[in-house]
Amino acid sequence: MSGMSEVYASVDLGGSKVACALATGDGNVLAERTIPTQSHQGSQAVFARIAALVSELAAEAGCQPAALGMGVPGLVDLEAGVVEFLPNLPTQWRDVPARDMLSSQVGCPVHLLNDVRMATLGELVFGHGSRGACTMVFFALGTGIGGGVVVDGKLRLGPLGAAGELGHQTILPDGPRCGCGNRGCLETLAAGPAITAQGVWLLHSGRAPRLHELVGGDAAAVTPKEMAQAAEAGDEAVREALVRAAEYLGIGVANVVTALHPELVVLGGGVAEMGPLLLDVVRESVRRRVRMFPTEDVRIERSLLGDKAGLLGGIVLAMKGGSIGGRKPR
Amino acid sequence: MSGMSEVYASVDLGGSKVACALATGDGNVLAERTIPTQSHQGSQAVFARIAALVSELAAEAGCQPAALGMGVPGLVDLEAGVVEFLPNLPTQWRDVPARDMLSSQVGCPVHLLNDVRMATLGELVFGHGSRGACTMVFFALGTGIGGGVVVDGKLRLGPLGAAGELGHQTILPDGPRCGCGNRGCLETLAAGPAITAQGVWLLHSGRAPRLHELVGGDAAAVTPKEMAQAAEAGDEAVREALVRAAEYLGIGVANVVTALHPELVVLGGGVAEMGPLLLDVVRESVRRRVRMFPTEDVRIERSLLGDKAGLLGGIVLAMKGGSIGGRKPR
Repeated sequence: MSGMSEVYASVDLGGSKVACALATGDGNVLAERTIPTQSHQGSQAVFARIAALVSELAAEAGCQPAALGMGVPGLVDLEAGVVEFLPNLPTQWRDVPARDMLSSQVGCPVHLLNDVRMATLGELVFGHGSRGACTMVFFALGTGIGGGVVVDGKLRLGPLGAAGELGHQTILPDGPRCGCGNRGCLETLAAGPAITAQGVWLLHSGRAPRLHELVGGDAAAVTPKEMAQAAEAGDEAVREALVRAAEYLGIGVANVVTALHPELVVLGGGVAEMGPLLLDVVRESVRRRVRMFPTEDVRIERSLLGDKAGLLGGIVLAMKGGSIGGRKPR
Repeated sequence: MSGMSEVYASVDLGGSKVACALATGDGNVLAERTIPTQSHQGSQAVFARIAALVSELAAEAGCQPAALGMGVPGLVDLEAGVVEFLPNLPTQWRDVPARDMLSSQVGCPVHLLNDVRMATLGELVFGHGSRGACTMVFFALGTGIGGGVVVDGKLRLGPLGAAGELGHQTILPDGPRCGCGNRGCLETLAAGPAITAQGVWLLHSGRAPRLHELVGGDAAAVTPKEMAQAAEAGDEAVREALVRAAEYLGIGVANVVTALHPELVVLGGGVAEMGPLLLDVVRESVRRRVRMFPTEDVRIERSLLGDKAGLLGGIVLAMKGGSIGGRKPR
């Protein structure tokens, strides 16, 4: 890998917090910090605070970043370096020329990407993909379900960096209305809130005694992780709800496997922390549903990098810049 | 394009017939003929007849092919040149070293590929894709539903040339049992037999008077094309059945568009001849279901090449040989 001796900066911009890191090209993190986003201050102020943070980290590490990679939770015009739309910030950003705004403040080239696609790069280069995968699919299971697709070593981007929205495959044609406007998206069936809602319902209906103990009767404390513990401890109804969600996810994974026959599928995000149940059910669903070719050679794994996938992907993005994806100028 | 002056041979091996053509590298067909497959004679005999046919065509055209591309309806080990499994021939073929068997008889290099992936190459190079698409998805709608995926100009193959089996996406999790063993595959809902079965049922139940006229009351004469004519002529129940099948296809298309944001989706095969209803419903389904990015720039078209897509793809395969796909040796 080139650029080992250079240092790069990475920024993972979220709705509530911004994570920032300085690292070498081989993924050795030199300094790292997280600050609140405070997006209500407007993009100019957010970028100023990010630039100040990068300066601090650079001073600590005693070196200047050669380039910066930033992931944002939304649509990016990759050629123009413009954030087209960030739906999840308290003040929605539209048409923010983020690349040039941030670049002028940090004094190095800036490259933008959707945050989940950036995490996909991290998984490819520093996670399970580093064992040699070249066609890989990443699912980020959190409040929503994002994704990323790598074909023959190149991130599939499309003109808006929006290819890979695997959480918005239709799994139930007449299913629940999704935030995106479609019905029955995978996200409506297997993202954190969909799973948690089932847990809360079972809690209220008295069918989850172990979960009730675990959260002290507090519905607000229910998470997929607590539900997995309750299932483990004997709450059968909770186990069924988790299996159903995991089977829906298994369909989403199976559909992409059928289309691309990848070497590797990585499940990341908070919901993936749920434990072995999720992985077991997804693996079994894929074996059962993909019948047109043998799937023994398709590895399905939980993220190695956890919540560091995005920041490490940002280092790859900073280092490789515009050459990460396979895009044709239009 | 290189190889314009060379002549190539193409073979499209089907369950009942074998189509064969000689053409220049720019797709100018010099000679073409179709013979019965007679697969019960065994693979050796079938290849001998194919080789004899190629010789005849070469004599007619007055030139020898530099290479031959052959599409087969099943799994191919691309590196070994071995047909692993052809489920649809009357005598199922297993582990037939087709590349070497045919090559020694025709006296030129032979390249194998799944037949629908070969047709995808045809559409890419000589069909709608020739207007410059580099990421393209092909659905072959016939007795089954096959497919092909092209990313950044390269056919996505996977280790068995089996990537792109788009007809085996799960559309209804608890839907009808598919021939592949899964439930609710797109193929069970929108392939020719699934559509025709609906037409026959409506015919028998007396709810398709126009269809009854068109086929003279003969259930065996019902096809998706006749059903489209009957719908046009006023059979509302037939129209509804066609719309439902097309909406299922629309979900399958929307899922792939969401994952890959291609520039082009091509619908081919006999069912696509059904007329504008299919294309209209699929386009509308994709617009309605893909909401994470604008889809105005995703063209959805009926095949330009029709049943010639496979043969023309075989010419591309012959010309480009092993460099058609993006594969990493394992």
